[in-house]
Amino acid sequence: MTTASPRPIGVAVLGMGNVGTEVVRVLTDKAADLQARVGAPVVLRGVSVRDLSRPRGNVDSAVLTDDPASLVTRDDVDIVVELIGGIEPPRTLIRTALQAGKSVVTANKALMAVHSGELSEAAAGSNVDLYFEAAVAGAIPVIRPLIQSLAGDTVNRVAGIVNGTTNFILSEMDETGADYDEVLAEAGRLGYAEADPTADVEGHDAAAKAAILASIAFHSRVTANDVYCEGITAITSDDLAAAKKFDCTVKLLAICERIDADGAERISARVYPALIPFEHPLATVNGAFNAVVVEAENAGRLMFYGQGAGGAPTASAVTGDLVMAARNRVLGGRGPLESTYASLPVAPIDDVPTRYYVSMQVADRPGVLEQVAAEFAKRSISISAVRQEGAGENARLIVVTHRASDLDQSETVAAIEKMDSVIKVSSVLRLEGTND
Amino acid sequence: MTTASPRPIGVAVLGMGNVGTEVVRVLTDKAADLQARVGAPVVLRGVSVRDLSRPRGNVDSAVLTDDPASLVTRDDVDIVVELIGGIEPPRTLIRTALQAGKSVVTANKALMAVHSGELSEAAAGSNVDLYFEAAVAGAIPVIRPLIQSLAGDTVNRVAGIVNGTTNFILSEMDETGADYDEVLAEAGRLGYAEADPTADVEGHDAAAKAAILASIAFHSRVTANDVYCEGITAITSDDLAAAKKFDCTVKLLAICERIDADGAERISARVYPALIPFEHPLATVNGAFNAVVVEAENAGRLMFYGQGAGGAPTASAVTGDLVMAARNRVLGGRGPLESTYASLPVAPIDDVPTRYYVSMQVADRPGVLEQVAAEFAKRSISISAVRQEGAGENARLIVVTHRASDLDQSETVAAIEKMDSVIKVSSVLRLEGTND
Repeated sequence: MTTASPRPIGVAVLGMGNVGTEVVRVLTDKAADLQARVGAPVVLRGVSVRDLSRPRGNVDSAVLTDDPASLVTRDDVDIVVELIGGIEPPRTLIRTALQAGKSVVTANKALMAVHSGELSEAAAGSNVDLYFEAAVAGAIPVIRPLIQSLAGDTVNRVAGIVNGTTNFILSEMDETGADYDEVLAEAGRLGYAEADPTADVEGHDAAAKAAILASIAFHSRVTANDVYCEGITAITSDDLAAAKKFDCTVKLLAICERIDADGAERISARVYPALIPFEHPLATVNGAFNAVVVEAENAGRLMFYGQGAGGAPTASAVTGDLVMAARNRVLGGRGPLESTYASLPVAPIDDVPTRYYVSMQVADRPGVLEQVAAEFAKRSISISAVRQEGAGENARLIVVTHRASDLDQSETVAAIEKMDSVIKVSSVLRLEGTND
Repeated sequence: MTTASPRPIGVAVLGMGNVGTEVVRVLTDKAADLQARVGAPVVLRGVSVRDLSRPRGNVDSAVLTDDPASLVTRDDVDIVVELIGGIEPPRTLIRTALQAGKSVVTANKALMAVHSGELSEAAAGSNVDLYFEAAVAGAIPVIRPLIQSLAGDTVNRVAGIVNGTTNFILSEMDETGADYDEVLAEAGRLGYAEADPTADVEGHDAAAKAAILASIAFHSRVTANDVYCEGITAITSDDLAAAKKFDCTVKLLAICERIDADGAERISARVYPALIPFEHPLATVNGAFNAVVVEAENAGRLMFYGQGAGGAPTASAVTGDLVMAARNRVLGGRGPLESTYASLPVAPIDDVPTRYYVSMQVADRPGVLEQVAAEFAKRSISISAVRQEGAGENARLIVVTHRASDLDQSETVAAIEKMDSVIKVSSVLRLEGTND
């Protein structure tokens, strides 16, 4: 049987770290499968690296270049896979590629969390694909299900554990009782934390992902700057132990929520360590794993679970996008781009209804609970649970509240901190994953 | 701002049961959202019902018809949503619609599990979409992630709880200790089991889903007839109690696996109740919930969890497909269709490596275990665990084996049944979800 062979699809890979190396390996090792799935050969035209002198295993040196800018506009390149990371040069390279009519696949959450608007416009202008499944939760399909599978539904909430480093640290602290610094050092030794862990432990990585998830879930433009963000550096083993007494664990959550105050619909996007009840599906997600819970009007509660980072899992998401973009090149058409028609505003954290967990060192004398309770009552915050522990210098009072505006909650805590009978507010966390 | 309004996308809905009613409601209530997401108005052209005289709530009687055949070829219909169920008339209606150039969305697992080949060909011939996300696991995005998100990966295994009725029954039996018949009656009262529960409890519904999952996961044609199938009607409360002693629970699993014997790659697709260890992610999926675990070479283990049935969840999957098909009508292009290039053969159950759990009523005398063990050893099946319980007439021996071909396992059981010292083999189940 002789048929006209379809034109090959040329691919340029920018960056050859863990993920890039794995993507290049798949393009080689699985060439026959990819060709069958795409309907045309998928050919690696070039790989850009920072240091040409470093050995690159089995990669043909003829495809290596240290000039990504030339690579992204080459005539024989149809799809650019950006795996460099960071804002520049990826932003310029991707925009250039899109304007030159190339489809783009990227794993770059920091970039997509801030510049998805201009990049989507460029993609729409050239009628090409811009896919970024790997930007959130690694191998776990979350972006495509939200954009496509739930396209006929109304998403009300997305809550996820989307940072493996911090989840590893919190899981270890919970399991071993060790303190933050100790476990962070261990995470570094095991390769779960980078040399500079700031982006992870301060919540910035999760915040970028929250921005992306909120944008697509609510068809609105949400950028990383819109996301309220607290990290895990202040979490102590005491917090985890205390959480257990309320049948809770502590997780760094990315939460994207539709909130409706006085009939005006807004979005909340926030990242912070929070108590969640043991029976919540995210409570049992441990170690470096990721999971995302989506609540939609018709679908109800869905959960997606898997490996959120690492070379091979991230490469799985990248090559999935690559095959879909290549297929669109062969058959025509393109996948959905950013949709921001709903244009919902982002509410400041002060306006968001939250529940608080407040742990205080208090004077060991009668009447302290009464005074603290009065302070919450002043702002109409009702108390859900109280524990008093220890005695003398170790007297401790823990209060868990019902839902109220975060501003009222935080102002109450500020007032409590000034009370004579409260020696120190040692810990303030929010409580998530409950219905009341 | 005046721009040329895009041509509306006309939709015909066939069948107005739970799901159809919900889909029609979404088309009406969420018309503005759907229009924004599609890029054109989505207009309900007609709804076919069996009985025109039945009242249909708020649905405009002008769109109702009892003539689906005319509806699917109407000029103003772009997309046909088939929610009738069963093989005929849906098979003919869908084929006719596809040949007439309509895109089709269906929730019909029984049909897709047998006739996806001819229907995909018809869709390809007209260059239109054929989507069926709702056919497996209701609202849970599984089909699209497998076809699209994992398009660059190699799936090795899909294992799922894909039938809510049987999972409800097994969960209840496990929790309450009640017996099968009792719980089945309760499931009927609660609306979790149909008046004729055969398709659910005999595993046929799950087998249809297994065929669909195996086909897309392994890029091969697998039909319902290729799926080995056992139901749950023989499961007793004793089995569930005994499973607990091995730190296991019993679930009706749909398993699709790549098996490699003597270098020849084949597929196994099978449905049966199996013991799975408590720590397996499917073990905690209870009640009417569904979950699917996918294991892929690069992605590792992923899990998808949510509501597998019901009007609203199923409608969520249907309308998601509908929006994507409508979007393709507006922008051009179409989604991926069935891909069967790998054409892997399906292995008979006899050839599949399985682990067995065998519970026997035995004579209460020395040497019985030795004789039973010898029977397994004859076929080189190694034993993983043994329990001897009770005495006299209630003496019971339970054997759990390591992996061996299902034929060797079943022949061993047949031989054991004939032994003088074995009064009765009371239960034979397989053990899944272990690595050894």
